[in-house]
Amino acid sequence: MGKTRMEAFSDAVFAIIITIMVLELRPPHQTGLAALRPLLPVFLSYALSFVYLGIYWNNHHHMLHCTRRVTGAILWANLYLLFWLSLVPFVTAWMGENHLASAPTALYGVVLLMAAIAYWILQRQILRSEGPRSLLAAALGPDLKGKISPLLYLLAIAAAFLHPGVSILLSLSGALMWLVPDRRIERALAGAESGGRAE
Amino acid sequence: MGKTRMEAFSDAVFAIIITIMVLELRPPHQTGLAALRPLLPVFLSYALSFVYLGIYWNNHHHMLHCTRRVTGAILWANLYLLFWLSLVPFVTAWMGENHLASAPTALYGVVLLMAAIAYWILQRQILRSEGPRSLLAAALGPDLKGKISPLLYLLAIAAAFLHPGVSILLSLSGALMWLVPDRRIERALAGAESGGRAE
Amino acid sequence: MGKTRMEAFSDAVFAIIITIMVLELRPPHQTGLAALRPLLPVFLSYALSFVYLGIYWNNHHHMLHCTRRVTGAILWANLYLLFWLSLVPFVTAWMGENHLASAPTALYGVVLLMAAIAYWILQRQILRSEGPRSLLAAALGPDLKGKISPLLYLLAIAAAFLHPGVSILLSLSGALMWLVPDRRIERALAGAESGGRAE
Amino acid sequence: MGKTRMEAFSDAVFAIIITIMVLELRPPHQTGLAALRPLLPVFLSYALSFVYLGIYWNNHHHMLHCTRRVTGAILWANLYLLFWLSLVPFVTAWMGENHLASAPTALYGVVLLMAAIAYWILQRQILRSEGPRSLLAAALGPDLKGKISPLLYLLAIAAAFLHPGVSILLSLSGALMWLVPDRRIERALAGAESGGRAE
Repeated sequence: MGKTRMEAFSDAVFAIIITIMVLELRPPHQTGLAALRPLLPVFLSYALSFVYLGIYWNNHHHMLHCTRRVTGAILWANLYLLFWLSLVPFVTAWMGENHLASAPTALYGVVLLMAAIAYWILQRQILRSEGPRSLLAAALGPDLKGKISPLLYLLAIAAAFLHPGVSILLSLSGALMWLVPDRRIERALAGAESGGRAE
Repeated sequence: MGKTRMEAFSDAVFAIIITIMVLELRPPHQTGLAALRPLLPVFLSYALSFVYLGIYWNNHHHMLHCTRRVTGAILWANLYLLFWLSLVPFVTAWMGENHLASAPTALYGVVLLMAAIAYWILQRQILRSEGPRSLLAAALGPDLKGKISPLLYLLAIAAAFLHPGVSILLSLSGALMWLVPDRRIERALAGAESGGRAE
Repeated sequence: MGKTRMEAFSDAVFAIIITIMVLELRPPHQTGLAALRPLLPVFLSYALSFVYLGIYWNNHHHMLHCTRRVTGAILWANLYLLFWLSLVPFVTAWMGENHLASAPTALYGVVLLMAAIAYWILQRQILRSEGPRSLLAAALGPDLKGKISPLLYLLAIAAAFLHPGVSILLSLSGALMWLVPDRRIERALAGAESGGRAE
Repeated sequence: MGKTRMEAFSDAVFAIIITIMVLELRPPHQTGLAALRPLLPVFLSYALSFVYLGIYWNNHHHMLHCTRRVTGAILWANLYLLFWLSLVPFVTAWMGENHLASAPTALYGVVLLMAAIAYWILQRQILRSEGPRSLLAAALGPDLKGKISPLLYLLAIAAAFLHPGVSILLSLSGALMWLVPDRRIERALAGAESGGRAE
């Protein structure tokens, strides 16, 4: 089973999710620059979710780069991840239109948590298919980030009911932590190509 | 005629259909968690249709994996399937917004039935082009599932006017039955690769 | 210059255009089957435009199959075609919501005419790049269809102000005429592959 | 790291951005041709943005054609460009619905400026990865256009508050200047293929 179509389908879904969010940014009826102010939280929510989806797309890209074959279980784990990511525009819109109210911010955290779990499931399925001595297993190592981020999202959900701003900061730190994950895989790949063993 | 572009085009259409459904999930104007309750049937309809489209995409993926060349008839049979699938967001929205009323649930069954027939037509066209001794013909075998599912959808349409919940259960069983179809083709492929004959 | 990305981009645009049209099919607020009746012209307009876009995608697919290289002029001619096709959802919606009124039906014809002209320009650019002795030139032959269809669309535009039904029939005959164009190219390809010269 | 997926993802995002803009072109409720007049500025804004996105897609296509490998920094620079381009439908709609009012026209210029800067960052990242003696570096040369166009957009933003028409003309000249950029790369490629050195 080739992975080309799964990549192509995922790319299209990622591209649509990341782009339809901007449809929530409705042009105001007034023409002054002041008319843009109420749009600011919508815009910031959009930017935050764009970064999240960009991180997921980047990690997805790197993980599949190390994947040699695709099983039925991997196809469904991938669809499950895409399902949760497809809910990001909805929670982004709810949070953006309500200026960081508690429930929308908590739901935003829930969707991030479910997506993180789905990503972890997809990673498990690929590791099971590739084997414990595969390039991917070496690249991931003990996978600390994969273990810490669900905890961060759980904290973010709880914090949303106390202080939504803290909740967003916790989610953000979860995102920032992932902004460099590719280095592990890039290093492992470089190591594998130069004849050595990925540490 | 290569099949690459037909796959790429179908992937894009699948991705768009599966994703625009989420646009029906409008963020509520209130900010309490209670405001999400009226969205529950819309969300469940979305999840159900996501699974359906995922199944179709998976089966489409597997069937085309066994297809060596694409004729004009296959291109049109594929477009005909995509036409019926493109109506899924519409019937999903109608059903979701009306809490499983009879007519929307019946129409949902009609679209599933037409899509099942269109998939069967596409399969016939590919089988005609590949020949009766092809890998695909061996993988499909007597194709019991392909014959039972239209009956299930017909029952689901009739049941919608008596008890919409039963109708949804019938449609669901049609979906669950298809959740494992790839195994036939995966087994046949594995058999072919190991030199044996697909049983 | 490879043609892969131009094909991939065009496929995505075709897929989006063909799919966003269905967003015009708004689920009615009532739940009876009678509530679907006002949607019938919208549905029929959608089906008609789906067929048109399917024909364009099919012809585009076949024409690019015979194209060996892509120039800057071809890229822009392709974008120009996609521009006019991108207006199809707009004119489809206007026509569908107004039960074949004169002006929307005429505008539908105008967009079809402009798309036909844009397709002809794209074909000219590809022929110029491929040369008069190319496979595509042989496959197209005197290209009667390419010359008749703009006339049909012009008649359809004029007829819209007298009798919109006749206008739609003229557009439809223009479509039906194109439903079999691939055969020319398929035959030429088969001829070329069997060593002979495409007639 | 292959560039295929980055190209495929970018193509899909470009295709969606360019196509969802047309959703702003709402079919009027009246049926006369006069009902189209208020849509004219919306249509012209759409056409202008279509050309802009077409230019970006074309240049992106050519630049990546000369790119041999993709780093993490290039992936993020690409996402940053797509972020700003994804705001084009929003500013196009605001400008189109307000008949070239000052603030929307200025914001249109801001988004064009940010996209131009993002494109320049992407180009820098690719040049850093490819090296100063690469085909791309030779093709770009002193890159006068890349240096002039941000200035033009800055002027366009300032002019929007004095005379929006002049602002649009400045933006347009920035676009027209870029309508032929591919020739540099096409020429360099042709030179490289014929054994010579790209000048």
